[in-house]
This record gives sequence, structure tokens and C-alpha cells, in this order.
Amino acid sequence: MSDEMLCIDYRRLESIYGPLAESVRRLVDLSIRTEADPATVAAAKAKIDRAADELSASVRPGTFGVHTTPDGDTVAWGNAVVGLRNAVAPPLVLHHEADGLVWSEFNLGAAYEGPPEHVHGGVSALILDHVLGATAHKLGRPAYTGTLTLRYRRRTALGRLLRAEAHVDRIEGVKTFSVGHIADADGVTVEAEGIFITPRA
Amino acid sequence: MSDEMLCIDYRRLESIYGPLAESVRRLVDLSIRTEADPATVAAAKAKIDRAADELSASVRPGTFGVHTTPDGDTVAWGNAVVGLRNAVAPPLVLHHEADGLVWSEFNLGAAYEGPPEHVHGGVSALILDHVLGATAHKLGRPAYTGTLTLRYRRRTALGRLLRAEAHVDRIEGVKTFSVGHIADADGVTVEAEGIFITPRA
Repeated sequence: MSDEMLCIDYRRLESIYGPLAESVRRLVDLSIRTEADPATVAAAKAKIDRAADELSASVRPGTFGVHTTPDGDTVAWGNAVVGLRNAVAPPLVLHHEADGLVWSEFNLGAAYEGPPEHVHGGVSALILDHVLGATAHKLGRPAYTGTLTLRYRRRTALGRLLRAEAHVDRIEGVKTFSVGHIADADGVTVEAEGIFITPRA
Repeated sequence: MSDEMLCIDYRRLESIYGPLAESVRRLVDLSIRTEADPATVAAAKAKIDRAADELSASVRPGTFGVHTTPDGDTVAWGNAVVGLRNAVAPPLVLHHEADGLVWSEFNLGAAYEGPPEHVHGGVSALILDHVLGATAHKLGRPAYTGTLTLRYRRRTALGRLLRAEAHVDRIEGVKTFSVGHIADADGVTVEAEGIFITPRA
């Protein structure tokens, strides 16, 4: 890694690009729910297109990827679940407890809908894949999903505080067996178990 | 349903709101990848906020939900996988063959990233939940995911043409057992099997 790369100030970049993504998240929600008239929609679309043109002035080719700060922290701002800069991501903020538990509390809006007013079953799978996988990651050695099994106990409502959590059940060689769930205030809605593979160094 | 509801012209609404969501999808991608300077980002963010304010003039409360046209077609424009108006959705366009096969071809960009330059394992789960589930839906009687199991054979690259497909393996009472996969030009990357429950009428 070059000296120039090491000098990137991620905190400063976060303060620039984080609020941009928050504005885009609000726009994603409103573009689903607006009932504004055609002229208003056309005017809004024109502003969005101009904003996009401006952001195109300088663009990283391909994808954001995963960066590492000088302190060794992982920067996955493009990630579909936790990416600070990715308006597809809610984004989840993961907490890692000393005993290995990984958890996150979050709220999902209209953009995550499957059955009317409920979380898309696949969105629950997306979130649980990420949270279970996070129990298996080691510094600089991400784990990859091998298998993932989901059991849907009941539907998960949009607009309520939700909690996802996972822990490691056991480790066998390169395989980490993790279990977890999503719950609302009334209990577990979706259970998951997964096997995550840590490639040999 | 009231006469007024029956008179909604979904084709006309599609021509108004579809292009808006396409513009928002481009913006989501650029907001992840832009390296524009702070002043440019601030100017773009201001335009996005004004566009969002304009779209707020008239907003459906809650979520989009699922509508039905006078012809009996389902309108799930807010859906997280196929929603025309939802910038979180790629969106997938599903094809239903006479023999029950459901398939979709699509391309995923930077917003669906997990491992660098690869599709998030949970995004593959999201897509497969939807495509497998679609094999089980009956007119006016959506099926709900009971269990879903995913086997990841290898990583799925972003930016390549992908195909998801699924078919019904067997039906036992209210349970539809479906199987499917995601493939790229080199073969299957993720396999899935699921049990989908059709609530009794």
C-alpha cells in the first residue's frame, strides 16, 4: 500500500459521503411512495439527473470494494447490508460482544417490502447471511457463506424496531457453524443457521 | 374495490414513476462510487434534498403494498426484488413458462457488493427467495416462505449477466417444494431449495 493510500482520512470522507447516502435513502423511500403529479415528478427527476451528472465528474471504476484503514479497520462502505455509502443498505451497524455475539438493531421501511407491510423474506435472509457471517470473520480473513438455512416462524412487520443476532455454535477446521435470528418485540420471526468457510491463509 | 380504484391507469403511472426510479438507481450507484470533491458532493446533495422535498408534496402513507389491476395483474412496485418503483430492487423481471419454470436474467452492479467485486451472499439469497417463491404463487393467493436453504458453490461476480431460475419439485397439501439456482456463463454459483406455504383460502 502506498504512503498516499495510508494518508486517506476516512473520518473526513465519512462526513462527506455519509450524508449524501442518507439523502439518497430518503429519496429511495419517497420515490416508492410519492403520489406527486407528473409535472412535479418530472421536475424532481431532472434535479436527480443533474445531481447524478455532477457526481459523475470523478468516479471510481467498478465497485467500492473493501478498504483497510491504517488502524486495521475494515471500510466496506459499498456493502449491500452495512455500507455507509450504499443506499440499498439500511445500513446495519453491527456490534461485536466480547463473548462473540454479533447483534444489530434496526428499522426497515417501504423499500424492504415483500408481502404488503411486511419485510421481504429474502431481505431477512440477506440480513441474517451478513450477521451470521460476521461471527466468522477474522481480521483480514473474511469468511464466505457455504450454506445458509432459514426457517420463517411468522411474518416480520416493516416499521418496527427489529434485532438480528448471531453467535458461533462450533468450529470444525475451516468451517464455522453459526446460528442466529431476527426478532421483534414479540419474539423471534426468522431463525437461521449457516456454515461459513474461512479460506486457508 | 371502488370504481375510482378500478379506473387507475397503471400503464400511465408506470410511464411517470418508472423513469424516476431508474434515475434513482443511477444515483444510488454513483453515490457509492463518486470521488467528487466536497463542494460538488454538497451541491449534488442539495439538489437531491430539493427533489425529495418536491416528491413529499403528496405521499402514500406506510408502504406501497400490492395492488391488483382491473385485468387481475399484480402490481408490486414497492417490492424489494421486482419493484418497478423501488431503487433497492435491480429490479428483476420474472418470466413464467408454461411448464412452471420461472426465470430471470439480470445484471448486478456496485450496490449489491459483499466480497470485493462479488455479489453479497445475502443478495443471492434475496433473489432466490423471490424466484423460488414465485413458482408457488397462485392468483390472489401469494405463498409465504417456510424454509429456505442455500448452497454456495462458488462466488458470483458483479457486472456479469446472471440468470436465476426455479421450478416446483412437488406439492404436499399447503406446502410447495421448489428448487432453483443462480448461474453465470460458467455454470451454477448458488443452489436453493425452499418450502413455500399457501395459506388456505
